Amino acid sequence: MKLEITADLCDGLDLVFSALPHKASAEACIPLLEQNIKVVDISADFRLKQADVYTQWYGVEHPDPTYLEEAVYGLTELNRDAVSDARLVANPGCYPTSAILALTPAVQNGWIGGDIIVDSKSGVSGAGRSLSMTTHFSEVNENVMAYSVNGHRHLPEISQELDAVADQPVNLTFLTHLIPMTRGILSSCYAPLRPDIAQSADASERVRQMYKDFYADNAFVQVTDTPPQTKQTLGNNYCLVHPVVDSRTNRLIVISCLDNLVKGAAGQAVQNMNLMCGFPEAMSLDALAVYP
Amino acid sequence: MKLEITADLCDGLDLVFSALPHKASAEACIPLLEQNIKVVDISADFRLKQADVYTQWYGVEHPDPTYLEEAVYGLTELNRDAVSDARLVANPGCYPTSAILALTPAVQNGWIGGDIIVDSKSGVSGAGRSLSMTTHFSEVNENVMAYSVNGHRHLPEISQELDAVADQPVNLTFLTHLIPMTRGILSSCYAPLRPDIAQSADASERVRQMYKDFYADNAFVQVTDTPPQTKQTLGNNYCLVHPVVDSRTNRLIVISCLDNLVKGAAGQAVQNMNLMCGFPEAMSLDALAVYP
Amino acid sequence: MKLEITADLCDGLDLVFSALPHKASAEACIPLLEQNIKVVDISADFRLKQADVYTQWYGVEHPDPTYLEEAVYGLTELNRDAVSDARLVANPGCYPTSAILALTPAVQNGWIGGDIIVDSKSGVSGAGRSLSMTTHFSEVNENVMAYSVNGHRHLPEISQELDAVADQPVNLTFLTHLIPMTRGILSSCYAPLRPDIAQSADASERVRQMYKDFYADNAFVQVTDTPPQTKQTLGNNYCLVHPVVDSRTNRLIVISCLDNLVKGAAGQAVQNMNLMCGFPEAMSLDALAVYP
Amino acid sequence: MKLEITADLCDGLDLVFSALPHKASAEACIPLLEQNIKVVDISADFRLKQADVYTQWYGVEHPDPTYLEEAVYGLTELNRDAVSDARLVANPGCYPTSAILALTPAVQNGWIGGDIIVDSKSGVSGAGRSLSMTTHFSEVNENVMAYSVNGHRHLPEISQELDAVADQPVNLTFLTHLIPMTRGILSSCYAPLRPDIAQSADASERVRQMYKDFYADNAFVQVTDTPPQTKQTLGNNYCLVHPVVDSRTNRLIVISCLDNLVKGAAGQAVQNMNLMCGFPEAMSLDALAVYP
Repeated sequence: MKLEITADLCDGLDLVFSALPHKASAEACIPLLEQNIKVVDISADFRLKQADVYTQWYGVEHPDPTYLEEAVYGLTELNRDAVSDARLVANPGCYPTSAILALTPAVQNGWIGGDIIVDSKSGVSGAGRSLSMTTHFSEVNENVMAYSVNGHRHLPEISQELDAVADQPVNLTFLTHLIPMTRGILSSCYAPLRPDIAQSADASERVRQMYKDFYADNAFVQVTDTPPQTKQTLGNNYCLVHPVVDSRTNRLIVISCLDNLVKGAAGQAVQNMNLMCGFPEAMSLDALAVYP
Repeated sequence: MKLEITADLCDGLDLVFSALPHKASAEACIPLLEQNIKVVDISADFRLKQADVYTQWYGVEHPDPTYLEEAVYGLTELNRDAVSDARLVANPGCYPTSAILALTPAVQNGWIGGDIIVDSKSGVSGAGRSLSMTTHFSEVNENVMAYSVNGHRHLPEISQELDAVADQPVNLTFLTHLIPMTRGILSSCYAPLRPDIAQSADASERVRQMYKDFYADNAFVQVTDTPPQTKQTLGNNYCLVHPVVDSRTNRLIVISCLDNLVKGAAGQAVQNMNLMCGFPEAMSLDALAVYP
Repeated sequence: MKLEITADLCDGLDLVFSALPHKASAEACIPLLEQNIKVVDISADFRLKQADVYTQWYGVEHPDPTYLEEAVYGLTELNRDAVSDARLVANPGCYPTSAILALTPAVQNGWIGGDIIVDSKSGVSGAGRSLSMTTHFSEVNENVMAYSVNGHRHLPEISQELDAVADQPVNLTFLTHLIPMTRGILSSCYAPLRPDIAQSADASERVRQMYKDFYADNAFVQVTDTPPQTKQTLGNNYCLVHPVVDSRTNRLIVISCLDNLVKGAAGQAVQNMNLMCGFPEAMSLDALAVYP
Repeated sequence: MKLEITADLCDGLDLVFSALPHKASAEACIPLLEQNIKVVDISADFRLKQADVYTQWYGVEHPDPTYLEEAVYGLTELNRDAVSDARLVANPGCYPTSAILALTPAVQNGWIGGDIIVDSKSGVSGAGRSLSMTTHFSEVNENVMAYSVNGHRHLPEISQELDAVADQPVNLTFLTHLIPMTRGILSSCYAPLRPDIAQSADASERVRQMYKDFYADNAFVQVTDTPPQTKQTLGNNYCLVHPVVDSRTNRLIVISCLDNLVKGAAGQAVQNMNLMCGFPEAMSLDALAVYP
């Protein structure tokens, strides 16, 4: 079956995925919402709850902040019920999906506080298909660099969601790196761990078991017994999470990875649609075409 | 020492390297030549002897064809004396350097005729720093493709030089491929080999010895005893050449490789300058900075 | 569903895929055949019809040459009926699949003769998971090389199949190259083309139409209108074929590509199994897991 | 000039570089030291001051701990005088060079305390030429992973040196990652920054100026105004250091990078030799051959 691409939306739509740039996406989606068409917005327009934070990070006024309250942050595993009932889902950014899934169990359990560092490494497709010197093969190949060192736009999104889980503001440093591969994000997260947990016998196993219990009913989040690799997520909708305790320093390290084009974007969008439409959550997500 | 880059040429120049686009390069160089400044032109403007062939492949009229006769084709090893005496050197293309050095000994010796296929593989820096979807990391990485399948602009240059060596028109097919690396060209050349050579005992050794004799006094062309790899030429001015006989089919295979940014461009330009100015040929070419 | 891997074969088998090394594979498969279990052998043991050619290229005596006649060469598109009736299918090598699919229409049509050059470029997974300096990342990355320059083991397989189509021995040169990517083979094939075809108006379109007709009923071979790229075959069972005429030289160029781990190995094995078992040919081949 | 490699050391040696495995290196070097031959040991054998820490991390008894006191830790910029006078220099590990150069100015200045996280990303050549599945191209390419998550052997080396600068034990977490490139290490270092510095106007510029002053007389350590990239260090002996203040969280981030085979190994070894022998520090380090 060939998908036909048309300039205009057809009639009788049940749901729309929007992958427009920020601001343009909200402007296109709001009329649809008013026609009671469900929307999964893959842009950043409905992710942040506070219009002034949106303006601070994206440099534009929000087209209609009244929708920010209604929008459900579509990190499916953490907001399954709300997504199921939602008319408007804000699909999370690729980095936030990896970071929030990595940290939420420990934050919610009170094992770590709000002193958090997230060091993320991403392939190039995270930057999209637009042309720039930083995506030119000769510049990326055989190279690694940090970028957005003064603050990546995904930072407020991670903060907002972890604040809500912690019920207090977290003190988050988030640094992003570009590495020479096409797909994949790996985040290494660091936080002081409650000393009684950190110094307990088999601390890593204990934390890992807590994580496994937390994600027990979530097929697409796998807590792994060995450090995960992005290649294991290539072309699939999994987020792999691996907590490990650094007992020398009473710190928790959580490594997580995913395919930024699947669980970090389109795959999670489909997962959310499935819930919004009453379909099985994993429908159409078990085998995916891969490009690029 | 920091090199200062200025918009205008300074006074008292002895020699200019031009790396402007075709046509623009000729237009900039011709006034310099008229002031008796020596020129190494790295564009294609003075490589082809016939103005109509230039127009056919580059789609523009040549600014001043009267210089085409004077210009020396700067494949240093093959035209050393002419380069030494030249006022205007046309620095060869990256592909032609690898193909012509690979084929000239056998053509000149009459061991192969004019029935030639050159299959070349290039890294991405051959396409320059300009932005296009075909140099986007996500498109190039984990990918290989043929391009310019209807004829690459370097074809007439290879034909012209081999015609001259063969003293008859060669029947050349030349196909280029883009592979996921930054630097390097490897050309695999195929031609029917005189059966008495192909069927002689130790045919490959015999051909290799002839090649070694041919390039005996040329430090930058090395005839190798094993198949060469582009990595061996990374950041240096060598062209490695490896002839091997396919006795099953009476064909000669010659594999050659080089760094397209050094022997395939700037390195050979310096080599030519050295001769034009009476400097030692290898001056400044024994250790090079590498980027990208 | 998790696949359980056991040391021994279970009872009641209908069909076995063997991916053992050559010789070991024949030794393991022959007892199964004698129990009337169908076999798709992914090793080279049943591909060559002549035991002495097998010994010449693989350096061992064939365990039981009596099976060589029975074995069907499993290039599905070309031998569909025979595969459907077969008890023993020799799954083709990755390189031969790309080369034979590229050349067969032109050979069978008499448009090219037996004077053929195949220049193939492969990713590293073609060499399997065994460790060697030639698969070490630091050696492969940012590098390209020709290998097996004195003759790759897939050469006799290509010759045998093209000989049969041409009904005469072809004069084949086949050279393989290792390029820095994990998956994918691209073959560039060159042969003198009948001058009346080569010089006809729209020669490339004419040849392309003949190819399209030839493969009209074969979903997994697509004749493309633009030069194909291995990335387009990543993780799928397609072989893309693109013929183009070099009218300057009266030569046919055919570029073909595939994923060496799918159409070049396991995917084609499943395709053959489907026919042998009476299943739809494309069953289980529309969406595949990708690793590595 | 061709370097001749012989099984035995020749007579009349002034200085030996040893790149043997740990323990074997000490065993080979000690007899040389006793003949008053200077030694630059590139193994880990003389880096750690305490024999029990050595045994804990390397799993063997140290051959002769009496030399541990004498050995000078050869991070040239920080120990220039001691290196100049040394008979035995322990050349630092690649990761420690990047981490210690990144953190020392802030630690010594008392601007950060001992609460430090170092997240390092390395190319594959850091693992040497030995063969393993983790250096197989198909496993590394298009992949990123954390490794040695329970503690990399370079951790005690970093701790030891920073402890000495801080004059108190630092609480260091150090995590290493393998990324798909051949050469290069980039370390991202995180530490709480004195709030008066973090909240000062132009905090990043202020910190950067302090770093520039600190390294003012060190040609091979460059404090950069923009985030550095490993490609900028490819094949040269520079370590690039870029401090930046995260004022939102009162944290210092320092990004540093180098070529693990040059400043992270052989280049720094030559730099140390130059000092030990009274040569100019940069001798032979301005232009280097590159492989792989």
